[in-house]
Amino acid sequence: MPVPDEPWRLDAHEALPLIRNGELKVVDYAKSLILRIQRRDQNVKAWVWLNPSQILQQAKVLDELPASERGPLHGLPIGVKDIILTKDQPTQYNSKLYETEVPINTDANVIMSLRQAGALIFGKTTTTEFATSKQGGWHQNLTQNVHDPKRTPGGSSSGSGAAVGDFQVPVALGTQTGGSIIRPASFNGCYGFKPSWGAVSGEGIAQWSKTNDTCGFLSRSVDDLELLCDVFKVQDDDPVSKEQFQLKNAKIAFCKTHNWSKAGPGTQNAMEKAKDLLKKHNATIEDVELPDDFSNILEWHRTILSAEGRSSFLGQYLTDKSLLHEDIVGHVENTKNVSHKQQLEAYDNCARLRPIWDELASKYDVILTPSVVDEAPVGSNTGDMSFCSPWTVIQGPALNIPGFAGENGLPIGLTAVGPRFTDRHLLHVAKALGTVFEKEGGWQRRNAESTPLQKAVRRGSTGLRST
Amino acid sequence: MPVPDEPWRLDAHEALPLIRNGELKVVDYAKSLILRIQRRDQNVKAWVWLNPSQILQQAKVLDELPASERGPLHGLPIGVKDIILTKDQPTQYNSKLYETEVPINTDANVIMSLRQAGALIFGKTTTTEFATSKQGGWHQNLTQNVHDPKRTPGGSSSGSGAAVGDFQVPVALGTQTGGSIIRPASFNGCYGFKPSWGAVSGEGIAQWSKTNDTCGFLSRSVDDLELLCDVFKVQDDDPVSKEQFQLKNAKIAFCKTHNWSKAGPGTQNAMEKAKDLLKKHNATIEDVELPDDFSNILEWHRTILSAEGRSSFLGQYLTDKSLLHEDIVGHVENTKNVSHKQQLEAYDNCARLRPIWDELASKYDVILTPSVVDEAPVGSNTGDMSFCSPWTVIQGPALNIPGFAGENGLPIGLTAVGPRFTDRHLLHVAKALGTVFEKEGGWQRRNAESTPLQKAVRRGSTGLRST
Repeated sequence: MPVPDEPWRLDAHEALPLIRNGELKVVDYAKSLILRIQRRDQNVKAWVWLNPSQILQQAKVLDELPASERGPLHGLPIGVKDIILTKDQPTQYNSKLYETEVPINTDANVIMSLRQAGALIFGKTTTTEFATSKQGGWHQNLTQNVHDPKRTPGGSSSGSGAAVGDFQVPVALGTQTGGSIIRPASFNGCYGFKPSWGAVSGEGIAQWSKTNDTCGFLSRSVDDLELLCDVFKVQDDDPVSKEQFQLKNAKIAFCKTHNWSKAGPGTQNAMEKAKDLLKKHNATIEDVELPDDFSNILEWHRTILSAEGRSSFLGQYLTDKSLLHEDIVGHVENTKNVSHKQQLEAYDNCARLRPIWDELASKYDVILTPSVVDEAPVGSNTGDMSFCSPWTVIQGPALNIPGFAGENGLPIGLTAVGPRFTDRHLLHVAKALGTVFEKEGGWQRRNAESTPLQKAVRRGSTGLRST
Repeated sequence: MPVPDEPWRLDAHEALPLIRNGELKVVDYAKSLILRIQRRDQNVKAWVWLNPSQILQQAKVLDELPASERGPLHGLPIGVKDIILTKDQPTQYNSKLYETEVPINTDANVIMSLRQAGALIFGKTTTTEFATSKQGGWHQNLTQNVHDPKRTPGGSSSGSGAAVGDFQVPVALGTQTGGSIIRPASFNGCYGFKPSWGAVSGEGIAQWSKTNDTCGFLSRSVDDLELLCDVFKVQDDDPVSKEQFQLKNAKIAFCKTHNWSKAGPGTQNAMEKAKDLLKKHNATIEDVELPDDFSNILEWHRTILSAEGRSSFLGQYLTDKSLLHEDIVGHVENTKNVSHKQQLEAYDNCARLRPIWDELASKYDVILTPSVVDEAPVGSNTGDMSFCSPWTVIQGPALNIPGFAGENGLPIGLTAVGPRFTDRHLLHVAKALGTVFEKEGGWQRRNAESTPLQKAVRRGSTGLRST
């Protein structure tokens, strides 16, 4: 069987049927991605651990697995943010504490699930130090924006956003405590999905804020997110229709939030353009304002992060605080003097807002809101998380949908949000939105042009069927 | 230097100064505990991993450490519940899934802190399967109650409660999701402290319920809990007085809770006796009733456990569900049909009750409430957690204070509870309560008689001073 033309271009939902049918060997798919990475790595640097011979060995094992033992993600290459434990690859948290003595031999719960589903744990992607908000750590500023190496890829799931945006893997795991999935998704032009709090296990993943930390996914299509949500049994109470979501008469709200004054021209334009496009597609558009109380949510979120960081980083702090970023030291030493009284007020106020949010959001098919201030800024600062944090602490699902362009032609996404535990509904609606935004929003993904292989896949036949 | 008489009898706050002064070598302390364990193990079976040569090797390293590099817990032997990752000892979760391929090489955050503080990670203690409520797993019913081998030690921190209650280590780590610290503490006659939610890191510890899981400590004295809280930087907003807490005119409330009908004669007696004793010591006693809404809290707690178990055990379930207890399989498969709507109602209702609880509890110096239904039952069922779960889901501190006896002479404790993040105040008050309960409550700890060494320690001089 000839090696298919550039399988690295494939999304997961395109590649998996080919593997299932025997038209694409996992080894060939993996080789194609490894070549892609080797070609692109000096411009992107998304990986902190990538061992081609280990990958190909595992790919071979997968290829040799009898069909009856294959899982739903059989052969799916997946990047893993380097704060998630993997038993066969080191985890270093972008911390000098883990430069020599490295955790290994333990799988995070999500990795256990992925392995059983047949995924190919491809390698470990860069993160900010312990996935905190600041760049730092021992491979500081390593990763570059896929679309402009002078710009930040966003963070803290920097490498996952860049690797997926650059077609180095179809999907990757990220985590979000403030804006750590949504922001790199927007900056690199991919989908980034933060599920509802608790929908996916956090065991074996670095902890900063129990109230906020959420494991999620980066991809180049909503279909791929649905594949992952199937494996992770992310389900709504009401099953989602099998039919495509219809934009006609859909009730879609736009929410500028209390941070709107921060929105740059790129984000302002994306919001306007999205509104126009959805109107054109006959959706019913409304502007929605958050109740006044939501104006404090960023402060409460910050308070919770500082307060919960006190215990979360204590082990590292006691081990060697001189190796930690000063902000992490500051959390443990409580340099901001956050009292437990403030912490509890933040907890209780956010808890009070959550059902208010659910009720508000359930009036619409979806609410759209900015993902970021603007396109990825020049430099290494991973960017402002003000537009992401509210939905993290509210604990509902949030999804970056790409499709818009900033003044410099870099991608800008919008975030689709919904009530807690309506994750599958949100993806269902977002698939229709994404189709429109990606086609008509003004930003085109490089490498998005269809190859002969992809065209064949979309036709339903590649003609490559092997034995 | 002669080996001191039975150092295994020492509490941590007694042993540490002797080590600090050079009167007790860590190696000798460890040897004494190992001998104690060897003598008692067939009746208690608290350990799933205990490697004497590894212990003694680490003890030797500690003994050789220059004084300037010694931490506040230098030489403290500590038992670790076997759901907490330790880089030098396997972690098996009492699950057949981990019978052969075992996580190692990774330290939980709490273990990092303990190592830096100079603790001697002694061994791994038994747990129920993944610390869930049912006995099970591959070393089912292994551990026996310290005071009657026919009875349960309680769970899920079974081995930690038994090891501490039996003087096999002075302190141990446990975790609580329902009643998993309080219950084994009460059944084995020791202190068990569940700090406020989030006060101690949960990273590297098995997860069942993000909302409830809390790492805490078992000990034979409040002083030892204070030592651990110092290391883990568990602090109140208002620093606690250095003076001993005075029971005279202290405002102490008794709360029977909505579960009082479950209380057996042992617990009824303990509540009455505690009240009489405190009156005798001139405390001001009040009965306090929880608002009506608290009557639903057990149901909400159960709902949250089931709902959060869906994602928490997915990795294990997909790996091999045939090796899991049917209750764990049931969580993943949601056999109880817990909807997200019910889950969110449980979240939001519990969140609403938390500040109500804080306000109510802050009117008193402390509130006392049952720990358990009665003394440890015969058999292997780890017991009813109804009296513990409300305080777990309320997320404030809870402490089992021993001192009372059931109809068969087995220990029964009462739980001291307070507003969230008043952990140190609670310990401060509980020290005064514990002194009274242990002396006058009717239950005497075996081996509590003072040895010459302990008497000397309490006098302030052992005469054993070495070099």
